[in-house]
Amino acid sequence: RMACSRFEYVKSFEQDDSILPNVWIVIRVDGKKFHKFSKTHDFEKPNDENALNVMNAAATAVMQEFRDIVLAYGQSDEYSFVFRKETTAFKRRSAKLLTYVTSLFSSSYVMQWPRWKSVPLAYAPCFDGRVVLYPSDENLRDYLSWRQADVHVNNLYNTAFWKLVLGKGLSNQQAEERLRGTFSADKNELLFQEFGINYNTLPAMYRKGTILLRKRVVDRKGRQAIVPLHEDLISSQFWKNHTEILGKYV
Amino acid sequence: RMACSRFEYVKSFEQDDSILPNVWIVIRVDGKKFHKFSKTHDFEKPNDENALNVMNAAATAVMQEFRDIVLAYGQSDEYSFVFRKETTAFKRRSAKLLTYVTSLFSSSYVMQWPRWKSVPLAYAPCFDGRVVLYPSDENLRDYLSWRQADVHVNNLYNTAFWKLVLGKGLSNQQAEERLRGTFSADKNELLFQEFGINYNTLPAMYRKGTILLRKRVVDRKGRQAIVPLHEDLISSQFWKNHTEILGKYV
Amino acid sequence: RMACSRFEYVKSFEQDDSILPNVWIVIRVDGKKFHKFSKTHDFEKPNDENALNVMNAAATAVMQEFRDIVLAYGQSDEYSFVFRKETTAFKRRSAKLLTYVTSLFSSSYVMQWPRWKSVPLAYAPCFDGRVVLYPSDENLRDYLSWRQADVHVNNLYNTAFWKLVLGKGLSNQQAEERLRGTFSADKNELLFQEFGINYNTLPAMYRKGTILLRKRVVDRKGRQAIVPLHEDLISSQFWKNHTEILGKYV
Amino acid sequence: RMACSRFEYVKSFEQDDSILPNVWIVIRVDGKKFHKFSKTHDFEKPNDENALNVMNAAATAVMQEFRDIVLAYGQSDEYSFVFRKETTAFKRRSAKLLTYVTSLFSSSYVMQWPRWKSVPLAYAPCFDGRVVLYPSDENLRDYLSWRQADVHVNNLYNTAFWKLVLGKGLSNQQAEERLRGTFSADKNELLFQEFGINYNTLPAMYRKGTILLRKRVVDRKGRQAIVPLHEDLISSQFWKNHTEILGKYV
Repeated sequence: RMACSRFEYVKSFEQDDSILPNVWIVIRVDGKKFHKFSKTHDFEKPNDENALNVMNAAATAVMQEFRDIVLAYGQSDEYSFVFRKETTAFKRRSAKLLTYVTSLFSSSYVMQWPRWKSVPLAYAPCFDGRVVLYPSDENLRDYLSWRQADVHVNNLYNTAFWKLVLGKGLSNQQAEERLRGTFSADKNELLFQEFGINYNTLPAMYRKGTILLRKRVVDRKGRQAIVPLHEDLISSQFWKNHTEILGKYV
Repeated sequence: RMACSRFEYVKSFEQDDSILPNVWIVIRVDGKKFHKFSKTHDFEKPNDENALNVMNAAATAVMQEFRDIVLAYGQSDEYSFVFRKETTAFKRRSAKLLTYVTSLFSSSYVMQWPRWKSVPLAYAPCFDGRVVLYPSDENLRDYLSWRQADVHVNNLYNTAFWKLVLGKGLSNQQAEERLRGTFSADKNELLFQEFGINYNTLPAMYRKGTILLRKRVVDRKGRQAIVPLHEDLISSQFWKNHTEILGKYV
Repeated sequence: RMACSRFEYVKSFEQDDSILPNVWIVIRVDGKKFHKFSKTHDFEKPNDENALNVMNAAATAVMQEFRDIVLAYGQSDEYSFVFRKETTAFKRRSAKLLTYVTSLFSSSYVMQWPRWKSVPLAYAPCFDGRVVLYPSDENLRDYLSWRQADVHVNNLYNTAFWKLVLGKGLSNQQAEERLRGTFSADKNELLFQEFGINYNTLPAMYRKGTILLRKRVVDRKGRQAIVPLHEDLISSQFWKNHTEILGKYV
Repeated sequence: RMACSRFEYVKSFEQDDSILPNVWIVIRVDGKKFHKFSKTHDFEKPNDENALNVMNAAATAVMQEFRDIVLAYGQSDEYSFVFRKETTAFKRRSAKLLTYVTSLFSSSYVMQWPRWKSVPLAYAPCFDGRVVLYPSDENLRDYLSWRQADVHVNNLYNTAFWKLVLGKGLSNQQAEERLRGTFSADKNELLFQEFGINYNTLPAMYRKGTILLRKRVVDRKGRQAIVPLHEDLISSQFWKNHTEILGKYV
């Protein structure tokens, strides 16, 4: 039933893209023009809890489908998926892994949307995806720390910025000027002094992002479930608490 | 506001994947496990017009977003998008082009679904995507001819198969045995003799797939629209009728 | 007799590097630190005929070994080898093609040296090599034109420079200053007015570089020989005179 | 002085080939058709000490030039060069590293030849080269063990084979049949019983290949020299004795 035609030679133009064995495979998806997307859909500022829930639900769907993802980490409009070093899923073909993850994340995002958001989707959201390889456990930890350091810096800024705009009535430009050149300590102080806010008591999901891990569930069948955490993964304590991530596949 | 941390070095592990200049870039998306998907959602056999309409609508959304796609071709659960040779979209970065197309196709598929199908989506559909490069116009034409020859062979078989099953009450296995080793002429004859069907009069969309082209619309603004065609693109007549495809970008 | 050991898995870390079909494959080798090399071996300035002869002889050896090279072009301390689009030599594996050419060129250079130069080699010469792909005939022609335009610009400059230094006793710096900002016409004029030299009558090998082509030899067996030419390949006349290059393999 | 011409765009067809950071880079060169080459130059069988010396001398030249090679390993007509994980030589560009090593090895082989062999080179030798990446120290050790296990199996066979041919007057075919299906123990026994040879007392260079390491030389300046060893590198003792290899660059 295969179409054997004189055109079939064109198949030979497909090129092999197998990934080097024994490296961590990270696939990160990232919202395309989500600044506009969040405006169109009227996201709460600085954080829209339900928009983050849509991201987390879409990522959970991806992790349920691809068993060799040992950890996923999301913040803002991005999500990183970590395939274990030894995975042979799709023969480690780069484009296969990349597009399956990106596609399922995208379609799941649309599927999950109405469960969390009341406003209907105005248009189809779009995500880019990339594959990055990390040879050592240290490299992988540093990658995840990089993303978590990023959410810290951005969220502290955004929290202060929107407080100034929404709470004090500053214009966007005025708020920007007020924060220019300030350090983390300054912004913490500003939040505390002017708004009575202790930054460290704000919801951990906003400050730390979301880590998805597989954990055995205490039910009769002892199955695995995908569990969201909002912990600090930069410190080594996290890796001691969850030794299965860097260990062999459980 | 950029997170400059000691972890930032991990960014240097991202590798350049720019595509060679002056080649046709074809991105093909392909439904993952759509045999099961079509069963779950009770697709009509051998062709579900509305399921194909969802595919076409999703592909149209992709083509509207990425202006450098000069032609798209779809059949069954796959769609190919042809970027013009000279495109500099996303600096020709392979993963960017690949994932934007695959992501937008996937999310658009879910968005378009309820417009064409009454049964709700049981789960999120998933598509893989691949990039294939064709240096010459002849290679590109042969690629598209390959896909169209494929739909011909498959659809003729499927039409005969489902007539035997649905019309004559044969089991799947019996129908398979009946068709084993037959040539196109045999199947045409079978359809005509036993079911009074002239295969060539069946809907062209089933027999030829769908070609999406940009065409000037005759309205006041003379804008471009994306037009679906169900023509034979294997013959050279098609390319004479639509010279803009292989010509320079209009 | 094959060594089947538990270590053999490491072979799977080798990655496929097959070159896209239907593109021109250009391999260019380039002398490493040949400025120093030419000083050490006391090359004549601005051109050392015998040093160029060593290059040409080494390139001829490469072309004799790899039958799918249809043209080679050399100037200064570099040589480009053009494999025909359809070549399947070494399964089009990039590293194989690249290293065979670079290796044989390097060893042949040392072998050929004493036939042309009387001073012995002070140390082993080293060349880097790169693979560049050109999809269209026009791209290929433009590549070769680029290299030939390069030799023109450089050789005109060098000819004027060394005349000023060796003929007029200027220091290197003085000669550099004298030529700064001059156009081709200026340098032609300078050579003519001050040294009575008509640049266009200087040896074509210096001005145009060397093109190696396969040509039928008029002997009893009608065999092919590799023939050096020093023609202008930027003009289309060259390609009309040697239609076999862009045509199918003869 | 740069040739800025309308052809210069062709330079943009060169593609980036930087190697992933933090992986061991192994470059292996391998003689092309060295079976014929060894016949032409009348190599002693089963091992030609001076031919191996030429290989070792060429490899030493490569290691002297590229300071980031921490270890080289050679046997028969092949040599592997290990660049330290952290090397930034030539911006880790794959083709640069690959061709510099292969080129210098090839030209040095020709340069070194007359110092060890009295028969002149009949033609230019040619080597292919490949780049293989190993993420972990274990992978690297296994790669080197693989090559050393290879020389063991091949050399034991060849030693027995040539004893039968040269010592007992068997034809090549008879010797092959005599050895077919035998295990290492059988061949050891055959050598001992029929020829009074204790295989383990044969020169270590033949049995173990040659390892080149950098070692501090005990002279006034405490410089580094490249030292040949013929040790067993499969056992962990080797790596304990030479901790600098897997450690940071000294």
